[in-house]
Amino acid sequence: MIVKMSRLATAEEVAAVEANLHGWGFKTGKMVGEEITLIGVYGDVSLLPIQELEVMAGVEALIPISRAYKRVAQKGSPGHPIHHTVKIGSVEVGGSELTVISGPCSVESEAQIMEAARMVKEVGGKALRGGVVKYRSSPYSGWEGIGSSSEEALRNGLKLIVKAGREFGLPTVVEILDPADVPVYEDMGVDCFQVGEPNSKNQALLNRLRDTTLPVIHKRGNSLDVEAYLLWVERVMATGKENVILCERGISSCNHYTRNTLDLGGIAAFHYQLSCLPVAVDASHGTGIRDLVHPMTLAGILAGASVVLIEAHPNPLIARSDGFQGLFPEQLRNLVTACQKVWEVRRRVEKLYIPSALLERDYEKRIPGDRKRFFGEG
Amino acid sequence: MIVKMSRLATAEEVAAVEANLHGWGFKTGKMVGEEITLIGVYGDVSLLPIQELEVMAGVEALIPISRAYKRVAQKGSPGHPIHHTVKIGSVEVGGSELTVISGPCSVESEAQIMEAARMVKEVGGKALRGGVVKYRSSPYSGWEGIGSSSEEALRNGLKLIVKAGREFGLPTVVEILDPADVPVYEDMGVDCFQVGEPNSKNQALLNRLRDTTLPVIHKRGNSLDVEAYLLWVERVMATGKENVILCERGISSCNHYTRNTLDLGGIAAFHYQLSCLPVAVDASHGTGIRDLVHPMTLAGILAGASVVLIEAHPNPLIARSDGFQGLFPEQLRNLVTACQKVWEVRRRVEKLYIPSALLERDYEKRIPGDRKRFFGEG
Amino acid sequence: MIVKMSRLATAEEVAAVEANLHGWGFKTGKMVGEEITLIGVYGDVSLLPIQELEVMAGVEALIPISRAYKRVAQKGSPGHPIHHTVKIGSVEVGGSELTVISGPCSVESEAQIMEAARMVKEVGGKALRGGVVKYRSSPYSGWEGIGSSSEEALRNGLKLIVKAGREFGLPTVVEILDPADVPVYEDMGVDCFQVGEPNSKNQALLNRLRDTTLPVIHKRGNSLDVEAYLLWVERVMATGKENVILCERGISSCNHYTRNTLDLGGIAAFHYQLSCLPVAVDASHGTGIRDLVHPMTLAGILAGASVVLIEAHPNPLIARSDGFQGLFPEQLRNLVTACQKVWEVRRRVEKLYIPSALLERDYEKRIPGDRKRFFGEG
Amino acid sequence: MIVKMSRLATAEEVAAVEANLHGWGFKTGKMVGEEITLIGVYGDVSLLPIQELEVMAGVEALIPISRAYKRVAQKGSPGHPIHHTVKIGSVEVGGSELTVISGPCSVESEAQIMEAARMVKEVGGKALRGGVVKYRSSPYSGWEGIGSSSEEALRNGLKLIVKAGREFGLPTVVEILDPADVPVYEDMGVDCFQVGEPNSKNQALLNRLRDTTLPVIHKRGNSLDVEAYLLWVERVMATGKENVILCERGISSCNHYTRNTLDLGGIAAFHYQLSCLPVAVDASHGTGIRDLVHPMTLAGILAGASVVLIEAHPNPLIARSDGFQGLFPEQLRNLVTACQKVWEVRRRVEKLYIPSALLERDYEKRIPGDRKRFFGEG
Repeated sequence: MIVKMSRLATAEEVAAVEANLHGWGFKTGKMVGEEITLIGVYGDVSLLPIQELEVMAGVEALIPISRAYKRVAQKGSPGHPIHHTVKIGSVEVGGSELTVISGPCSVESEAQIMEAARMVKEVGGKALRGGVVKYRSSPYSGWEGIGSSSEEALRNGLKLIVKAGREFGLPTVVEILDPADVPVYEDMGVDCFQVGEPNSKNQALLNRLRDTTLPVIHKRGNSLDVEAYLLWVERVMATGKENVILCERGISSCNHYTRNTLDLGGIAAFHYQLSCLPVAVDASHGTGIRDLVHPMTLAGILAGASVVLIEAHPNPLIARSDGFQGLFPEQLRNLVTACQKVWEVRRRVEKLYIPSALLERDYEKRIPGDRKRFFGEG
Repeated sequence: MIVKMSRLATAEEVAAVEANLHGWGFKTGKMVGEEITLIGVYGDVSLLPIQELEVMAGVEALIPISRAYKRVAQKGSPGHPIHHTVKIGSVEVGGSELTVISGPCSVESEAQIMEAARMVKEVGGKALRGGVVKYRSSPYSGWEGIGSSSEEALRNGLKLIVKAGREFGLPTVVEILDPADVPVYEDMGVDCFQVGEPNSKNQALLNRLRDTTLPVIHKRGNSLDVEAYLLWVERVMATGKENVILCERGISSCNHYTRNTLDLGGIAAFHYQLSCLPVAVDASHGTGIRDLVHPMTLAGILAGASVVLIEAHPNPLIARSDGFQGLFPEQLRNLVTACQKVWEVRRRVEKLYIPSALLERDYEKRIPGDRKRFFGEG
Repeated sequence: MIVKMSRLATAEEVAAVEANLHGWGFKTGKMVGEEITLIGVYGDVSLLPIQELEVMAGVEALIPISRAYKRVAQKGSPGHPIHHTVKIGSVEVGGSELTVISGPCSVESEAQIMEAARMVKEVGGKALRGGVVKYRSSPYSGWEGIGSSSEEALRNGLKLIVKAGREFGLPTVVEILDPADVPVYEDMGVDCFQVGEPNSKNQALLNRLRDTTLPVIHKRGNSLDVEAYLLWVERVMATGKENVILCERGISSCNHYTRNTLDLGGIAAFHYQLSCLPVAVDASHGTGIRDLVHPMTLAGILAGASVVLIEAHPNPLIARSDGFQGLFPEQLRNLVTACQKVWEVRRRVEKLYIPSALLERDYEKRIPGDRKRFFGEG
Repeated sequence: MIVKMSRLATAEEVAAVEANLHGWGFKTGKMVGEEITLIGVYGDVSLLPIQELEVMAGVEALIPISRAYKRVAQKGSPGHPIHHTVKIGSVEVGGSELTVISGPCSVESEAQIMEAARMVKEVGGKALRGGVVKYRSSPYSGWEGIGSSSEEALRNGLKLIVKAGREFGLPTVVEILDPADVPVYEDMGVDCFQVGEPNSKNQALLNRLRDTTLPVIHKRGNSLDVEAYLLWVERVMATGKENVILCERGISSCNHYTRNTLDLGGIAAFHYQLSCLPVAVDASHGTGIRDLVHPMTLAGILAGASVVLIEAHPNPLIARSDGFQGLFPEQLRNLVTACQKVWEVRRRVEKLYIPSALLERDYEKRIPGDRKRFFGEG
């Protein structure tokens, strides 16, 4: 944290700010320029009494320099990061096993979701996904999900997927749109909330979810910078909730061939640098093209994902929503087989990963000698 | 190709256009609307005498509907694509082996490039890269490459990298900025031209390169849509040149954490859907962050790359350009080892890939039955 | 609308689809290709019995070709567009006068909002804006608005701005985040809902607002294409609501200098081509830089906005949120004066605007002669 | 400039760096953290002997904090900026008059460019534009400009536009693609070079142009941040060239309705904050839609442009390139009339513009009183 003093601030005002900071247990540094003075604050600034500080005479602005997402942030030390695990039902996510979550875009009927659950179970999936109230970009798409018309419809829709999940031993992941629906989801036995891309910045929904005990998969909004996204996730965790899963599902860019641009570099940044949370890759929405889901899901695992979301349908040609991206059953089976092979290699190649922090000091010491060898400089 | 007739076009004019198309050997279809008539042209429209057609009476516009990048495009049939190989020196690219191309951002001195070449050779790299004239976004960065000041300097710089490459049996890849320099590169024995991102749409340079025999690595411009990029690559191949390699190195997006957004979905589209050319991934420029190069290079291989470009330096802390993204030698060694493991798994999982075209007809046949089962419809 | 028939469709199935379409009162066209048949449907396709059509045997997909946002869309004829007006309290928006809506980012205290209302009234503003529950990207910004902590706080906060508005004869515009709060806003006498950028795709909120009678300012999400945004706005109007105002406030792009990229081309497209609704420009959020609000608000008026949203504060240096973009009172006064001058010139230059549709037929007739003159072609 | 010392730097090394900086005439500040020490350098850092500094023992990095584009940058003081003028032929650009530059996308024949020049002159245009070698995104567009096939064709094409310009007293602006063509353009009497969007980062071309005496219109690349673009422009001016004109013609974004997103906020930033150079707006390429050129050109003038580039054609329906965005002659006439009206109002409203720097100190003084009034704080 940097305290920027006003141009009009007196030396006494600067001294008073420093004294208070010291009194609160912080160390400080100071840079006095021609016009303004900056005071650096060292220590755990989440403990700073911000409101007292910002109204002190002469204080112009507080400039954060360390990351503002404390709970989302990666813990541990270079080469020894601590990654959290999250439970969805009885399934542990983010640990030593890859988690495959699959199912149709939407729950369409009891027969359909039951057959979808059987398909997911047979190929080795660990959880069942399926929407009961659907996002539709057009209000005239006609069908907004089996549970969209009333609370009763919502309860009936949730009942179908929960029943299918329990029949096949799969915990269920269902998207939620309205904060008022939280108790209904809990009551009907859903195992995990999903926050969809259009609601990634829905403050009312995120604030509501942080008071729940069920896990949350929080998808990244398609206009959110990597760190801006983590700040929205931090909102869900701000009061202590820990069971949150990150999910990359594509951002907007100059590219229009794929429906979105799946930012695997974001996944790598989350897993290797920025966050302690498990990371999911959703190549179905991230590409919007059925034939790219296979390679991009696998690539996502190597980028750092330990959870894969895959849309699939017993017959995607008759799916009522997003049918063009849902996999055929044979494709799902082969992709899950491939995922397991890639997960094995990921665990091996991760041991070959050397964070730069482990090497930098050594190479700093070599600088004089290397300068001389390469450039003849002394 | 669709021929859009003007609103004023007479029935005779429409008939004349159809007659000419038939005369040229094309089949046609027609859709007569309230205001305008569209004529569909079936067949290999690259054979159409466009200029004769577009000046015919009543013709308003020619609307392409199939892909405009014929030579770049994927050949073969679903499940049996034909991918080309390209030779860089004696190294075959795009075949059964992964190609690792590595080296420093810039050639800085004879000692430096010689040590870099040794490093690349020792870890199993197949070709040596290094810039002799460098892009610099600021004109005041001071140093624009060892070869930037004159043709003599350019020759001397190229001589250093070619010498280092030959010493260690590595063909050399060097970026070219000015069409006038082509003969100098050829004369000095460079093995492969590289077109950098800032020149991806440099028409004069691309037109000049299509008359060369050396291979070209053509990097994607950071504002280019997947298919727009392929059209620029088609320019290099338009008069028959075949030895061209695609390269994804990051596009611009709403994300600012990484220097660019490495579009691995683009790589998957190139390899699995759109192109017959080998595809390279450059995670060094694509992320701009040393510690993300490892996971993103590996992810790139699973997305579809068969060539990896990796910046590395004997001591990146004293590199004169882009030092923050160049790998330390230990990191390079481990990454190349990991690349080989991932390449092996890629070859296995690729066999599990099922293009939708192989399944669609079968699932179309099931539609009536599935509709009945899921929705009770007849 | 195009009906795409399956490759397996029989001639009888095609004929049955055509017969049904004719029976429903539509004209059709047909294009029979090698593999598939397309049936064009002419007429008001919003009257099509979509669900009956899409389950007919042989039908693969329905492809919309005209715009899917009927109610948002521009009416009238080229050169004679019909633009709607909307009432905010007693203020008519989108008619012959420019509407200036101003106020602070947040209601901070009774004294502050009262002074802000006085400031807005004095410079000629027509409505008062101010947030009572605030979006904050960080959960630790501390302050989330005077009304964020409980329903009672919300009621008290809304009471302050409504009181200030009524004191100075200004209707009030307040952002809403949670669908459950709609009755509270109505009850407290707010005159206009605002949907903020983060909620632009919040389906639950938009669905709830379409059942209200108050006007809605619906801001464009920063990742939404021009037409994708209009589809979300159409959602608010889908069941008959008409009093909606569009608002451009910046999209994400490769540019980082301004906080967002204010897409005035979008405003021009809304006003001159796509929509019947009044359009607002919000250069405060659109640039995020106080010193760019003046030129960009004025530019927005010429692009097509008839409403300007301007953040201002009696002393922005102590504003609790977004202080860096709020105008000083003197800047607001001068900007509103400038807006009036620009509005006058807009009304004059709009008369000089000639839609191409009024000229095209004439120039089509000149083609043969012009071809001969320019190219010597007959 | 900040000098970042290595973690291993000794106190002696820090002192030695400070001593050198003082010896070179700079003032310094210092912030000593737990791990690293930062030294701030005050003064005109363009005079710093960078290369001596960066090799001093203990120096890790030099971090620029002021703008790196000295020559492009705005001069003068807040409220009194100094803007440069540039001459194109005898036409002064960036002064008290608006400059309209118009003409067809391409020179197509002598008759066509002659009639285009007459059209431009009659409506009050000040300079004639027209391409002789054309960018084409597809290599198969067939026609790459009248001058594309050989140097002789280039000379003949340039001769046509120069002749037309001289006939009607209009200096000429022609795009250049290849550095080798510079002497040909000079020899044939072209009055101003244009660097097109695809070449905005073409280092070889920009380096070549800085040794010319003719003015240069340098278009912004569609992936360039506002300040990144100015650094590329700085390259053209780095060795002393002053007659350069900025041009905004659209960037890539999530919006696809318009061909590009015309970033008028960039124009406002250039004119009001960042640069001393005249700024042009090109709404023809910036929107790619004929019917949006009128409002967006006018909006561009209010954003800060003093030059407008408008594509127009005697009959755009037969233009060989970009015909869909070229104006009809009647549209051009009306738009130029409107531009003059808007330019008048721009000059009046610019007097109402108050930079914040003129108000900030005054409002800083009011803070204690305002805090007390609004928040009851002392």
